[in-house]
Amino acid sequence: MIEMDDAIRIVLENTQLIDTTTVDLMDALGYTLAEDVRSDIHMPPFDKATMDGYALQGGDIASASSNTPVVLDVIEEIPAGTVPQKVVGQGQASRIMTGAPVPDGADTVIMVEDTESEANGQKVRVLDVTQVGENIARLGEDVMVDQVVLEKGALVRPPEIGILAAVGVVRVPVYRKPIVGVIATGSEVVEPSLKPRPGQIRNSNGYSMMAQALRASAQIKYLGIVEDDAESLKRVIGEGLDTCDIVMLSGGVSAGVYDLVQDAMRDLGVEVLFDRIRMKPGKPLTFGVKGKKLVFGLPGNPVSSVVGLELLARPAIRKMQTMTMWHHAQVKTVLKADFRQSPGRKQFVPAHSVPGEHGVWTSDWVGHHGSADLFALARANSLFVVDAEVEHVPAGTALDLILLEEW
Amino acid sequence: MIEMDDAIRIVLENTQLIDTTTVDLMDALGYTLAEDVRSDIHMPPFDKATMDGYALQGGDIASASSNTPVVLDVIEEIPAGTVPQKVVGQGQASRIMTGAPVPDGADTVIMVEDTESEANGQKVRVLDVTQVGENIARLGEDVMVDQVVLEKGALVRPPEIGILAAVGVVRVPVYRKPIVGVIATGSEVVEPSLKPRPGQIRNSNGYSMMAQALRASAQIKYLGIVEDDAESLKRVIGEGLDTCDIVMLSGGVSAGVYDLVQDAMRDLGVEVLFDRIRMKPGKPLTFGVKGKKLVFGLPGNPVSSVVGLELLARPAIRKMQTMTMWHHAQVKTVLKADFRQSPGRKQFVPAHSVPGEHGVWTSDWVGHHGSADLFALARANSLFVVDAEVEHVPAGTALDLILLEEW
Repeated sequence: MIEMDDAIRIVLENTQLIDTTTVDLMDALGYTLAEDVRSDIHMPPFDKATMDGYALQGGDIASASSNTPVVLDVIEEIPAGTVPQKVVGQGQASRIMTGAPVPDGADTVIMVEDTESEANGQKVRVLDVTQVGENIARLGEDVMVDQVVLEKGALVRPPEIGILAAVGVVRVPVYRKPIVGVIATGSEVVEPSLKPRPGQIRNSNGYSMMAQALRASAQIKYLGIVEDDAESLKRVIGEGLDTCDIVMLSGGVSAGVYDLVQDAMRDLGVEVLFDRIRMKPGKPLTFGVKGKKLVFGLPGNPVSSVVGLELLARPAIRKMQTMTMWHHAQVKTVLKADFRQSPGRKQFVPAHSVPGEHGVWTSDWVGHHGSADLFALARANSLFVVDAEVEHVPAGTALDLILLEEW
Repeated sequence: MIEMDDAIRIVLENTQLIDTTTVDLMDALGYTLAEDVRSDIHMPPFDKATMDGYALQGGDIASASSNTPVVLDVIEEIPAGTVPQKVVGQGQASRIMTGAPVPDGADTVIMVEDTESEANGQKVRVLDVTQVGENIARLGEDVMVDQVVLEKGALVRPPEIGILAAVGVVRVPVYRKPIVGVIATGSEVVEPSLKPRPGQIRNSNGYSMMAQALRASAQIKYLGIVEDDAESLKRVIGEGLDTCDIVMLSGGVSAGVYDLVQDAMRDLGVEVLFDRIRMKPGKPLTFGVKGKKLVFGLPGNPVSSVVGLELLARPAIRKMQTMTMWHHAQVKTVLKADFRQSPGRKQFVPAHSVPGEHGVWTSDWVGHHGSADLFALARANSLFVVDAEVEHVPAGTALDLILLEEW
């Protein structure tokens, strides 16, 4: 039996970097970059107008006002997407649109709002001054050719998608998402599509585990239900080790069938690194490694399974692909009612929590029957943490709170 | 020009409930339920052992201890998934596995750890007492047949996936995800796969907008790049109105082509409800409705576009499908350095923020060149909010902070 902090440390120490692959631009959302990304162009690629207006020589309009407007000859119109053909001389201006290249000769763009067009667009009255150089984004002002715009390891979020598009990276080098293979164990377990016969129950854990793995940023592979039988377990765990990066079993870690799962793992060359954690819920939790592959034997109780996966397996899924935020966000909370436990194991208690005015949260314990009640979890958005030696937590006590809101 | 709070209110007032559909169990993750979900079985479906051990009559072992063990006849073995065949009488016990039905006659399960098997499994020595009724989960203790287990409108997270599996709902009635059609405007804009010629830039906003829409819980449909031309705009916006729930345009809302987009919208029967917001970045932002369809004309500047979509369009995407958390989480933050602005518009400033010990965050302003710099956004995980009339925010001032971490 080991402490929770040691269990997390052992899992993370045994988590190795996954290999890389390439995905299409829009599919890259949520992946981490496997290489530095460099720009193939200057950005902006030319001196660019940032307003609709007139490109001109700033000196020409230094005295302009609505009382003493300056009138300039309009020599060209430059829509976005075109290339200016004429050089702007003294007393001249070119009509220019946002995003269009500033023509040679011009050093300033005046907003259209500060002008009046006249003579059918052949002349413009400038009604106000503007600073020389105004309303122009300079070539390379944001990025120069070959500059690194996104670093290896960066998480691809919407702004990164925009940057990849801007530098033309339509096939994106990324770390692969770990494949989590999920196995439900138990001769009494049937698929959700079936009506359980007497003595049977539906596979519920397998599906919530897959949903958790997806949310943790993994791919999933459902390996099905395996009966409590040594050969079957060995066959399906073996299939998982062959085809997945992480194998997760639900159930089969309690005293009765416990040896079956551990024996199957050992027969397949998996080194078991721990099988009991001083935590509640979720004491019987087996973790093993074979090369780069990880195996988690999660408890059959739904709440234990959910908590074990979020606190131990999710960090591994994320570390594998070089994500930096391995753990759920943690805040401080205050309990709304007394909480009691029989001391001995660090406890993670499902709670419904709301943020308070000054950053401190408030938590309502979500009652459940032991560790089997999935319905309690559906009312929870967080876990508050009670130290092993504490028996009574009075209302108003401040505790650590693990946020599960991103579910 | 309207205030930001009014803009948000107008968008939400014009956001109507979307229609419903049915998806497969594992696809339901992240959807909201369109109907109450009821259980088709009792849970547990029978009195169930919660431990591996022996089912027996509690009265038989009231005096058991390791010094004075009680020996019982083992009459049956009940693996999980089977139905007990024998009634447990006085002086008898049935070996039982976790999850198996408790046999008639027995009222208690004693953990295997408190027993010793003897006579080749035909007898069991009970070494400790246990409370009558212990280690049994009662029929219907969690849920009774026909009880509502998940309410209409509930967001499907991993625990809800587990519950749906447990009650056999493998086709899930859900609100449809709104389809967001994305249009990039501008004759100078080319697809990311192309190398921009002089005067051209790549479509970057369209892709970051699609990524934002996905993250906001929408489906996406890319409607492509449209040049600044009345007929083309009308055709593509029309296609968006026909095939999508929300149409988003990038660019085409600045003074020059502004009228083109608004004219196209009006020609298509879209009522424009506002087109300028007293906010920074993102002042020129057009919002219109046609029946249940919403149209957002977002600014062409990347930062303005990102902020406008997160603060105005995302709440609409979420309200449509009855999600309850429309807005990003908001906390309090303290600025690490002075911040100055020219007053007049409420400002949302991209920042890199870290949570502090007592729930108050600390924010570093992420410098950017006006509102065009997507690279600044890539360094941000939040927006701090500066009121319109404030000119100088000294370091250490507490401000509202909008968290964008779930990106």
